[in-house]
Amino acid sequence: MMPGPVLARVRAEMGDLDGSGMSVLEISHRGSAFRRIADKTESDLRGLLAIPDDYRVLFMQGGATLQFAAVPLNLTTADVTVDHLVTGAWSRRAAQEAAKFCNVNVAADGGPSGYRTIPDRATWSPNPGAAYLAHAVNETIDGIEFPFIPESGDVPIVADMSSTILSRPIDVAAYGLIYFGVQKNLGPAGLTIVVVRDDLIGHARSGTPSLLDYGEVSRSGSMLNTPPTFSWYVTGLVLEWLKHEGGLTEMRIRNERKKDLLYETIDASDLYTNHVDPTYRSWTNVTFDMSSPDLETQFLDQAADAGLANLRGHRSVGGLRASLYNAMPEDGVRALVDFMKDFERRAADQGLGTRSTE
Amino acid sequence: MMPGPVLARVRAEMGDLDGSGMSVLEISHRGSAFRRIADKTESDLRGLLAIPDDYRVLFMQGGATLQFAAVPLNLTTADVTVDHLVTGAWSRRAAQEAAKFCNVNVAADGGPSGYRTIPDRATWSPNPGAAYLAHAVNETIDGIEFPFIPESGDVPIVADMSSTILSRPIDVAAYGLIYFGVQKNLGPAGLTIVVVRDDLIGHARSGTPSLLDYGEVSRSGSMLNTPPTFSWYVTGLVLEWLKHEGGLTEMRIRNERKKDLLYETIDASDLYTNHVDPTYRSWTNVTFDMSSPDLETQFLDQAADAGLANLRGHRSVGGLRASLYNAMPEDGVRALVDFMKDFERRAADQGLGTRSTE
Repeated sequence: MMPGPVLARVRAEMGDLDGSGMSVLEISHRGSAFRRIADKTESDLRGLLAIPDDYRVLFMQGGATLQFAAVPLNLTTADVTVDHLVTGAWSRRAAQEAAKFCNVNVAADGGPSGYRTIPDRATWSPNPGAAYLAHAVNETIDGIEFPFIPESGDVPIVADMSSTILSRPIDVAAYGLIYFGVQKNLGPAGLTIVVVRDDLIGHARSGTPSLLDYGEVSRSGSMLNTPPTFSWYVTGLVLEWLKHEGGLTEMRIRNERKKDLLYETIDASDLYTNHVDPTYRSWTNVTFDMSSPDLETQFLDQAADAGLANLRGHRSVGGLRASLYNAMPEDGVRALVDFMKDFERRAADQGLGTRSTE
Repeated sequence: MMPGPVLARVRAEMGDLDGSGMSVLEISHRGSAFRRIADKTESDLRGLLAIPDDYRVLFMQGGATLQFAAVPLNLTTADVTVDHLVTGAWSRRAAQEAAKFCNVNVAADGGPSGYRTIPDRATWSPNPGAAYLAHAVNETIDGIEFPFIPESGDVPIVADMSSTILSRPIDVAAYGLIYFGVQKNLGPAGLTIVVVRDDLIGHARSGTPSLLDYGEVSRSGSMLNTPPTFSWYVTGLVLEWLKHEGGLTEMRIRNERKKDLLYETIDASDLYTNHVDPTYRSWTNVTFDMSSPDLETQFLDQAADAGLANLRGHRSVGGLRASLYNAMPEDGVRALVDFMKDFERRAADQGLGTRSTE
């Protein structure tokens, strides 16, 4: 979902960007019009996230999935060990990919809980000599997230923030490296942003593809080849919109209100259940299910009729899921909870699916 | 440059794609609307290029530059030798990148000629045991291209076709693997397409990032992670436009006419010079220069005033360059040659820059 004012502007500038007579789809990444877009995107991102001066911002491609490989290629040698906190499907994939390149120590594994809780910190087994500690701040499929920054001593923290970036303020200096695809909270898929502390750049192992080498990317001003210009441009517009809306403090207020509204509805209901440990519930991806797949299908069908889309859980876990990215307005969540309450009443009238009938 | 009808349609569908109520920027790559787009893109591409059934079409990311690494990672082991024909800046970069992963034999090197000709085939030194023979069909910076398919016996040919794809018919079966970024002749940067013969898939070496592994990409239906959906969507629209305009036979006719018009103007002039061996002149990127950089600056300034953009040569070689991609209409080339003749007349009137004054 994209903010309405951003969509309107993309549409307007599709014919003529900035008086250039060219569509944004046609401008060269080497021209001054795109240079302005690129520079403003970086400065707005730096402003919104309060990125310290000793961090570089790299504009890359391939999504978080390519960073699963780029991070070990840049930050390790083959005999080095890295720590991974595995708390859901994405951090599991990141650990599997890293194991192609170095030794992976799963310092905490939420798997035995079905990724319904984050293992108690006292049970973690970090490696004191690890090159870094990697985790995914939020798991979009499992609906679980870290409400805290892991403690790692001198070991740099590497964080996948694809689904939470710019949803609230963060302390960039607590991390060695943060990466995110733009397609959840920013723009159309294509652009991938890496925020990385200076001292972690320039150590790529031999055999690292140029486009994955943070040193080469940084030296080229993120223009080793034609970047995904359109994705970059829309990302810039969304950052302007975020500033205009009041920045990340305001986003935090809105997002907290949205997720509270939805979890309160689920917890007050006899029909819907969220299975995640309340301490670690995702603000962004609210998972829930009902007592029967039939009922879930009815729910999805009737929701679609009511104009409520994208509520199916990820195909690997089933159930239902509502995603509350920045562009989802509180009214949208309110429409969803009204529908959920209504659906529950109708199901109860028919004696279906509430817990007491199970 | 994009075809006008495609731009108009993108603009129209920016608000509502296919009655979905959602912008194309918002649809999920897992949903049926995008599935239809992806499937139609592949079938239209297969139709236009007459791709044989034993070739897979992979939709990837990172541009040709990432394929410079992906090709050796998938098709070689570290002790294997590959042949490269180096005929300009891009094929030189491809050979340099490949050397990170395996032994590179530069079987022909246009460097000594300043990339103004393709070395005579009798002088090539291919390695009979090479894993493949790599070349760039057209060099966008140097304005030189292959008018023939290299002879390589049983050694598969790997071809970078980023700047010529869909500009005319090709014989896909003559190649083992063809790759191209879409940003020259198809859509906005982001999507990268690989057309590869079945038997060359599934041999990636260990330590290949998943997103670069042809086997993994193929098994996932090119959806290991969120693909660049917008770039894919516009690519699909441009393919529809190409079919509507008469396909690649018609494109060949138009592009031949366009390049003839421009080279004839250059050759008839005393002011403009193209330095490429006429046998190997690029149909797509026509390079030329004048006797003085000052005159070139005047030319660029006045051309811009006349609405003729993007005529500056690549910063690494200077001079001037006109790119004649599919979306450039013959009228655009006609406007350019009219301007060139007019500029030459004015320069002659002022006694500037013609060869006789040098």
